[in-house]
Amino acid sequence: MYEIERSKRASRAYSFDDVAIAPTRRTRSEEEVDLTWKIDAVSFDIPIVAAPMDSVMSPDAAIRMGELGGLGVLNLDGLWTRYEDPQAQYDLITQESDQITATKRLQEVYAEPVKGELIRDRLAQLRDAGVPVAGSLPPARTQEFAPVLEKAGMDFFVIRGTTVSAEHVGGEDTLNLKDFIYRFDTPVLVGGVATYRAALHLMRSGAAGVLVGFGGGATHTTASVLGIQVPMASAVMDVAEARRDYLEESGGRYVHLIADGAVGRSGDIAKAVACGADAVMVGSPLARSTEAPGRGWHWGSEAWHAALPRGERSFFEQVGTLEEVVVGPSRVPDGTMNLAGGLRKSMALTGYTDLKSFQRIELILL
Amino acid sequence: MYEIERSKRASRAYSFDDVAIAPTRRTRSEEEVDLTWKIDAVSFDIPIVAAPMDSVMSPDAAIRMGELGGLGVLNLDGLWTRYEDPQAQYDLITQESDQITATKRLQEVYAEPVKGELIRDRLAQLRDAGVPVAGSLPPARTQEFAPVLEKAGMDFFVIRGTTVSAEHVGGEDTLNLKDFIYRFDTPVLVGGVATYRAALHLMRSGAAGVLVGFGGGATHTTASVLGIQVPMASAVMDVAEARRDYLEESGGRYVHLIADGAVGRSGDIAKAVACGADAVMVGSPLARSTEAPGRGWHWGSEAWHAALPRGERSFFEQVGTLEEVVVGPSRVPDGTMNLAGGLRKSMALTGYTDLKSFQRIELILL
Amino acid sequence: MYEIERSKRASRAYSFDDVAIAPTRRTRSEEEVDLTWKIDAVSFDIPIVAAPMDSVMSPDAAIRMGELGGLGVLNLDGLWTRYEDPQAQYDLITQESDQITATKRLQEVYAEPVKGELIRDRLAQLRDAGVPVAGSLPPARTQEFAPVLEKAGMDFFVIRGTTVSAEHVGGEDTLNLKDFIYRFDTPVLVGGVATYRAALHLMRSGAAGVLVGFGGGATHTTASVLGIQVPMASAVMDVAEARRDYLEESGGRYVHLIADGAVGRSGDIAKAVACGADAVMVGSPLARSTEAPGRGWHWGSEAWHAALPRGERSFFEQVGTLEEVVVGPSRVPDGTMNLAGGLRKSMALTGYTDLKSFQRIELILL
Amino acid sequence: MYEIERSKRASRAYSFDDVAIAPTRRTRSEEEVDLTWKIDAVSFDIPIVAAPMDSVMSPDAAIRMGELGGLGVLNLDGLWTRYEDPQAQYDLITQESDQITATKRLQEVYAEPVKGELIRDRLAQLRDAGVPVAGSLPPARTQEFAPVLEKAGMDFFVIRGTTVSAEHVGGEDTLNLKDFIYRFDTPVLVGGVATYRAALHLMRSGAAGVLVGFGGGATHTTASVLGIQVPMASAVMDVAEARRDYLEESGGRYVHLIADGAVGRSGDIAKAVACGADAVMVGSPLARSTEAPGRGWHWGSEAWHAALPRGERSFFEQVGTLEEVVVGPSRVPDGTMNLAGGLRKSMALTGYTDLKSFQRIELILL
Repeated sequence: MYEIERSKRASRAYSFDDVAIAPTRRTRSEEEVDLTWKIDAVSFDIPIVAAPMDSVMSPDAAIRMGELGGLGVLNLDGLWTRYEDPQAQYDLITQESDQITATKRLQEVYAEPVKGELIRDRLAQLRDAGVPVAGSLPPARTQEFAPVLEKAGMDFFVIRGTTVSAEHVGGEDTLNLKDFIYRFDTPVLVGGVATYRAALHLMRSGAAGVLVGFGGGATHTTASVLGIQVPMASAVMDVAEARRDYLEESGGRYVHLIADGAVGRSGDIAKAVACGADAVMVGSPLARSTEAPGRGWHWGSEAWHAALPRGERSFFEQVGTLEEVVVGPSRVPDGTMNLAGGLRKSMALTGYTDLKSFQRIELILL
Repeated sequence: MYEIERSKRASRAYSFDDVAIAPTRRTRSEEEVDLTWKIDAVSFDIPIVAAPMDSVMSPDAAIRMGELGGLGVLNLDGLWTRYEDPQAQYDLITQESDQITATKRLQEVYAEPVKGELIRDRLAQLRDAGVPVAGSLPPARTQEFAPVLEKAGMDFFVIRGTTVSAEHVGGEDTLNLKDFIYRFDTPVLVGGVATYRAALHLMRSGAAGVLVGFGGGATHTTASVLGIQVPMASAVMDVAEARRDYLEESGGRYVHLIADGAVGRSGDIAKAVACGADAVMVGSPLARSTEAPGRGWHWGSEAWHAALPRGERSFFEQVGTLEEVVVGPSRVPDGTMNLAGGLRKSMALTGYTDLKSFQRIELILL
Repeated sequence: MYEIERSKRASRAYSFDDVAIAPTRRTRSEEEVDLTWKIDAVSFDIPIVAAPMDSVMSPDAAIRMGELGGLGVLNLDGLWTRYEDPQAQYDLITQESDQITATKRLQEVYAEPVKGELIRDRLAQLRDAGVPVAGSLPPARTQEFAPVLEKAGMDFFVIRGTTVSAEHVGGEDTLNLKDFIYRFDTPVLVGGVATYRAALHLMRSGAAGVLVGFGGGATHTTASVLGIQVPMASAVMDVAEARRDYLEESGGRYVHLIADGAVGRSGDIAKAVACGADAVMVGSPLARSTEAPGRGWHWGSEAWHAALPRGERSFFEQVGTLEEVVVGPSRVPDGTMNLAGGLRKSMALTGYTDLKSFQRIELILL
Repeated sequence: MYEIERSKRASRAYSFDDVAIAPTRRTRSEEEVDLTWKIDAVSFDIPIVAAPMDSVMSPDAAIRMGELGGLGVLNLDGLWTRYEDPQAQYDLITQESDQITATKRLQEVYAEPVKGELIRDRLAQLRDAGVPVAGSLPPARTQEFAPVLEKAGMDFFVIRGTTVSAEHVGGEDTLNLKDFIYRFDTPVLVGGVATYRAALHLMRSGAAGVLVGFGGGATHTTASVLGIQVPMASAVMDVAEARRDYLEESGGRYVHLIADGAVGRSGDIAKAVACGADAVMVGSPLARSTEAPGRGWHWGSEAWHAALPRGERSFFEQVGTLEEVVVGPSRVPDGTMNLAGGLRKSMALTGYTDLKSFQRIELILL
């Protein structure tokens, strides 16, 4: 904590770009590195979760993500649950050339209501494919569709908003998170959360995992619009400390920590784990895959807010299949392909063989 | 305070871009957020004051600003009090394509003297519209037009210069600020001021509010020309400390603090309040509104100085009506529309419901 | 002093861009500001010295500089003392369009030897004009032309190199600075020097003034080529401390301190004085005047080194007469015109009326 | 060490751009500066080692480097040991215009196996030229070609990987470095290494010198792909500390320290030595010489990794012969020619005459 003026204190915060992993005195062979992780009853080959964004996750892409050993989360508040066949809407969004009319188009397309039966059908499609089933809603929609979700047989339910607190004080449709999680059968992942105290309260609500971040990454402009910003390296480290304290306080409940934001390259994934994350949630790198329904265009849920849009629609060159992007091989030298391979190599070169111990590696401040 | 060389000390100063607001453990519904503030006898719906700059405030625009729940301050040292109908002058200024001839044109257009009767007429127009009436003059012009101002029935008189001190030592037309304020009926807002000590002296002169800043924001080049610069986050925090000390010293006089400079996006407004401001004075965002008389061109009073111009004429794309810019809805994701909405959302997401308590939120150093 | 690794210490250094002048609680009228300064027997209206660079100082320009109240220093190691009429050489240098051939051309043009009789004639021209007479040589040339200089009747002799130390250990033509100054009638200004210890030794050699800086400003690439760099704000503050200690040690000899480097705008001049300089030596701003013989092209003596050129030939748009650049009025808002006016305004707005006390103003770290 | 969050510590690290050399109170003549250094039985005129990269070192270029007084290291894992005449492969690599297909081409061209007899022939060619003979292999290839290397009569064998540790725990082809060096006749230089602890272990393995760096310089993207990064100034200083401690621990074994990475200009060479390096290994500056086989195109071994390429193919304008680039004269002002001359001048201007004492010069933090 710094005293920045006579009357204010502030803590210095670091982004992934402000820190780096330092080599140690050991190296390992890549074959010895184990990237598996487990949350609740489900094991994954790689700690990579696809963000529930319409630009990257269609039902098909979510299934493919599961087949690759990761987890694809479908946006249940998006195009696939508002429209029977959303192709026309995708076309509308991606055809606009300038930002202002694109924002307008997004606002229009997302004005269509979400349908419970489409939530049911989309989740059934994932389940039938035999991959882990996960879908997400914002806090305000959770109560409304809880009955549908209950019957859907999901492996994970993700409650994802710009920020989610355990103590939302609000209007009628306010979600009592603790109550909801207690009564809900499926394990819940919830976020974004970015600070120690907020994370601790969220953990106490019974969540199986928390999404660490605030307002996402490349496509969001939260800092400009709201002035709120939590650089990710500090956020992950801070929430990891909350996990440690909660582990003791709860007598052994380990809450998983998924870094959600500013994870655009494999080097960022390595840094996220090095800061304490168990897994990462990625968006923009997947927008570069040929399976992404946005065909390179990428936007988040903040981008279509009716009165205060807070995200830009961005374009990313498509570079290869979802498989190549996630598990390689890579054809580009910038860390946007073979995300798992980059993490594996980073761990090998610093002498680590499992994710949990890699969380303790020393960092450098740049 | 740092010792930067053997013989000098300096304090580290922070701009709005150097700090950010951190989420807390609570969130609130936007409907619960109250943005009203009150200064002297007048209440406002939103803590947004339009800067007395000819590029953004015509009498009509000032009236519209009042209707929207903010305060429009008319520049009484500008085109509307030098010319009966300044449209030809606006055309001259905005038609020039390069900076050097634009500066020359500004110097010529503003060589025309200010007329007392135009001050009277413009203020009457505001008063007749039923909105709060406010106009501004630089310190050197204040004495000369005091009699006209006295009769004008303003709600606020703004004395605004690059920097204004309570102890100007100077020539014949020197304004004795304390004397002036004591004898003047209308509440006075005065600035810019940027440091604890200068602010404390200004508060002791009896001002109802102080403008915090030095040399303004985007369109000024004070740092290059004068070497003087006070990053806004530090300036607001420092002056807020002076307000606190003066509150005790005076036995309860609360001087309002209006952040005037570097407030270009709604995120900056949130940061200004989080640093301790009661309201903000904005210029460039309003230049983007269709009501701005500069039609996108934006300049400050420093830009037309006869011997030492210190501001550039800038161009901003027009994005919507003054209403859309100030209270939304927004169609752009960068924080330049729906300024009040951005502040409201920022407060809701961090669990605050009134401006006064939001001033105490914790900050992060980036 | 910071310990940056186990085995190294380093001090943090600041450039003019890293610091700013803070307003105080007082303001003054500009008319009260006194910019005069005096070194040895000569008084100047403004603390601005023109750098001895062929791109900005011809004999005519040096005379004009003196008429304007400053000091023009003629480069006695340059084109005007190598060629009877150097116009053809100026044309050769300024006609080349790319950097590599321009460097080659500079290397060729400056291969011509310096002539003693041209030194004599050029200095006579200045003397006849009735302005203060000053010329410069690098340390290695000083001994050779000392006899000519002795007879020339200069007011100041400037020994200027990339760096000049009081303890040069070297070949046959090594200058014993202390000896030279002791026997030489004319007051000597010598530099560049950039650190406390080196400055203290230089002051003990009897110099009337020191040039603070290392390798100059905009047109030099010393940092890239040599790895040596001393940010100017720290350099000036450090040497000012040496001046203070030497003043006591010598029982009252005040050595003048001329900031020589990175002074490109009037704001930099204000900062240089605020850091402790008595005057500044400027190059690039003068390259923008119509009297500059380089007609906008600007280069330093490092640029034509035969084996290791260390400066680029840069181009600056010409904006006005030397008078307008130095004492105004200005037509541009970026601090490159009316250099003296910018300094005057900066002092007035912070409540100072003379240069000596302005050296004590508080600084801000950005 | 800083505590950056409750649970993490990190040390601040500096790049060459973050530090600078400060002038001292002495200057020297350039003729007095001695740039020679000696490692094992071999003396060199200049402390500049050419990096074993196919883009800059052909057998002919390596010979020329030796003739110029430096050391040329041939890449024994590259084009010259995979192909009898690699010209066609050079053409393939340099003809591709975009990065993605260039990476693909690199992956294909380097799929061809290395041949022992070509290693033998290339080294013989160097030996026959009468210059110091040095070649490099990555750790994984060292064991396989050890017999060939033994017979080749090299002066130095360089084991060079992204990172090399003394304790690689791995598969069958794992190199036991200590064992290998103990039994191998030729002095071994090994790296990259970037931290105190890893360097100390490497020194204990018996290496004659260590390469300080991680993942190289301009053409590598290790930070983006792996998240691993060690700014060079800190790395060199840290490893220099290990050298000092090992010198004591070993009773006098001095391990040479070669800075390998981010050395693109002569100023960086001076900084590397000032941080504690005995010599530097350079790549990109040599790519600008007419002798470079890549004809301006430059790439490292990471660029052709089959599954995780980590370097870009870059282009550098060719500026002169290898002689001009390494020992001058220079025709450019940016520090990319006359590398030795820049170092010599830097030492002269700060009063140093030999490399060993220049390692102790004071640094400045920018």
